[in-house]
Amino acid sequence: MKIEIEDLPYIATGAAFLGTGGGGDPYIGRLLARAAIESHAAPELLPVEELADDANVYTIAMLGAPTVLVEKAACGDDIDLALAKLEAYTGRRADAIIPIEVGGVNSLVPVMAAARSGLPLVDADGMGRAFPEIQMVTYNIHGVSCTPLVVTDEHLNSLLVETGNAKRAEDLVRVCAVEMGCSVMISSYPMTGRQVKDAAVRGTLSLALELGRAIHEGRRKDDPVAALLAALESSMHYAHARVLFEGKITNLERENRGGFAVGLCDLAALQGTGGAQLVFQNEHLMLSNSAGQPLAMVPDLICVVDGETAEPVPVEAMKYGQRVKVIGVSAPPILRSEQALAVWGPRAFGLQRDFEPLEELTGLAE
Amino acid sequence: MKIEIEDLPYIATGAAFLGTGGGGDPYIGRLLARAAIESHAAPELLPVEELADDANVYTIAMLGAPTVLVEKAACGDDIDLALAKLEAYTGRRADAIIPIEVGGVNSLVPVMAAARSGLPLVDADGMGRAFPEIQMVTYNIHGVSCTPLVVTDEHLNSLLVETGNAKRAEDLVRVCAVEMGCSVMISSYPMTGRQVKDAAVRGTLSLALELGRAIHEGRRKDDPVAALLAALESSMHYAHARVLFEGKITNLERENRGGFAVGLCDLAALQGTGGAQLVFQNEHLMLSNSAGQPLAMVPDLICVVDGETAEPVPVEAMKYGQRVKVIGVSAPPILRSEQALAVWGPRAFGLQRDFEPLEELTGLAE
Repeated sequence: MKIEIEDLPYIATGAAFLGTGGGGDPYIGRLLARAAIESHAAPELLPVEELADDANVYTIAMLGAPTVLVEKAACGDDIDLALAKLEAYTGRRADAIIPIEVGGVNSLVPVMAAARSGLPLVDADGMGRAFPEIQMVTYNIHGVSCTPLVVTDEHLNSLLVETGNAKRAEDLVRVCAVEMGCSVMISSYPMTGRQVKDAAVRGTLSLALELGRAIHEGRRKDDPVAALLAALESSMHYAHARVLFEGKITNLERENRGGFAVGLCDLAALQGTGGAQLVFQNEHLMLSNSAGQPLAMVPDLICVVDGETAEPVPVEAMKYGQRVKVIGVSAPPILRSEQALAVWGPRAFGLQRDFEPLEELTGLAE
Repeated sequence: MKIEIEDLPYIATGAAFLGTGGGGDPYIGRLLARAAIESHAAPELLPVEELADDANVYTIAMLGAPTVLVEKAACGDDIDLALAKLEAYTGRRADAIIPIEVGGVNSLVPVMAAARSGLPLVDADGMGRAFPEIQMVTYNIHGVSCTPLVVTDEHLNSLLVETGNAKRAEDLVRVCAVEMGCSVMISSYPMTGRQVKDAAVRGTLSLALELGRAIHEGRRKDDPVAALLAALESSMHYAHARVLFEGKITNLERENRGGFAVGLCDLAALQGTGGAQLVFQNEHLMLSNSAGQPLAMVPDLICVVDGETAEPVPVEAMKYGQRVKVIGVSAPPILRSEQALAVWGPRAFGLQRDFEPLEELTGLAE
């Protein structure tokens, strides 16, 4: 299938949901992707199974503060340059583009890149959600080198980074992104088709599309949250999904620390005396009940949506008094391996807990 | 001629003098260069005139806090890697090494690189002294592109930077240097022999050697400062040189601001009531008399030496009560062009003055 302009609002909404509060506002990415498709062509969405084993697949993503993106990257030349530089350095032309993450704006930057370059876009990503850092991808966990990695900005300055490990690349690129104006394009994790088959979370772009469509169509009928849950249940990766809490926001502590939106959010039940608490660092990390017992934790998806419209609510848009539903979704198995949890389990974010699957915490497994 | 181990103390002393208070302590560079010559070979010092017009000449330098260098870069693999990466990227093997600056530690890092690689070292540099930033070189002023530029660290991480201008490269490399542990190796300004002939300040490494030898030999006789001045007078570039003030340090304000050692230093005459003031930012920027009249200003060289031994005193080693002589040296003409003054004249460092040559300020021209 091709990604058409009328698909973009659905992908944007679905990606905002899978962004679990972070990943940046896909609205901006949607406008950029729309412009790219209008001026070039609708890109092909390629199932992982159809990739040749020796295909060259390059990621493309925005790194930095997504809020800055709207003012900076209207032209896309920085995206083209990042790909061209990585091709020049590896000496291999790209055969396809793949996202780093499906949650948020970085689901749509690759759509833009694919439209501009005429390359197919692989229907997969390296997170199955959003995470804040470059090393937090399945590609890294499966031994794909993060570098050579190219950074570009809108003035067409470029950096080529080569490091021994992805966390080192992350730290370097982060300071460069700030110096280059808080938002850059990166092309990294050059992979073969074989590596994509081993390492990627499959089918996630079409999942974002389906989830977004379910929400939009659910609004025209009766219950968008129910429509969303039904769509999640029919997906191959996300085995468990349910509303874990419904209530209103009664307290919100949110600050910028080390470039992250860090904080917590208290919720009170609309009826009765129950409560819950969300802890977040860009993305939601944990949901606990009023007794302090966890109901879901990272890397399981903790998604806050508007109680009526099922519109995903990013961390930066949460506000006092807002009525929301918190939906827990079990992370794909590839995100829950021991190696994976070392990179993005609760302890990787400073929480003093080992990971417990939400289906066990909430009795969904029975 | 070859640079032998017994030349290194002279080059180190001469380079400390030409560093005009900054450029980092060449003692560390001397130890590293000594080790490189011992384990490899004494490098050839090549006069600019003997370079082929189509030779590929690459700079190598340390960037960051020189104080950190002693703990980090003992092995030199980072230097080799920087050169190898720049060669790989340009597709042209280096035929010779050239320093960026002659003042301070970066006079000796290229000696180390030349010894390790077996390449000749060009007897020239891009400053004829020390300046704090990458764009402050004659290569830049003569239109040589600062990039492609390679940054490496002791863990053999590497960055390749490509930018539209050298100041942009400087800003990017600076934040990377901090992230990479405050000290990195850079290889930049890839040039042809023809470009070196047009853009470099010639003969400055052999000058550093001569100045250092004059100081050391002067100590064995009577007056090392007089010996130093005599050596300066016989150099081709530095037409005017004299002791502008002699006294002791009576006040010192020195702080770290934006990664620079910024401050001022008051001096009082040993006899009588005269005084003077030095203003510095890593290097000395201006010397004024007690009436506030300037006696010398950047890019002319303002060099503080011990009053007895003529040992150059770096800004970080100045202390209360120290007896010093302040020597003014006219900068080579290539450093005083209108284009050059825009990059490193007094206003480039925030001083509200136009450049005036020290020979006019002090009546030396008559």
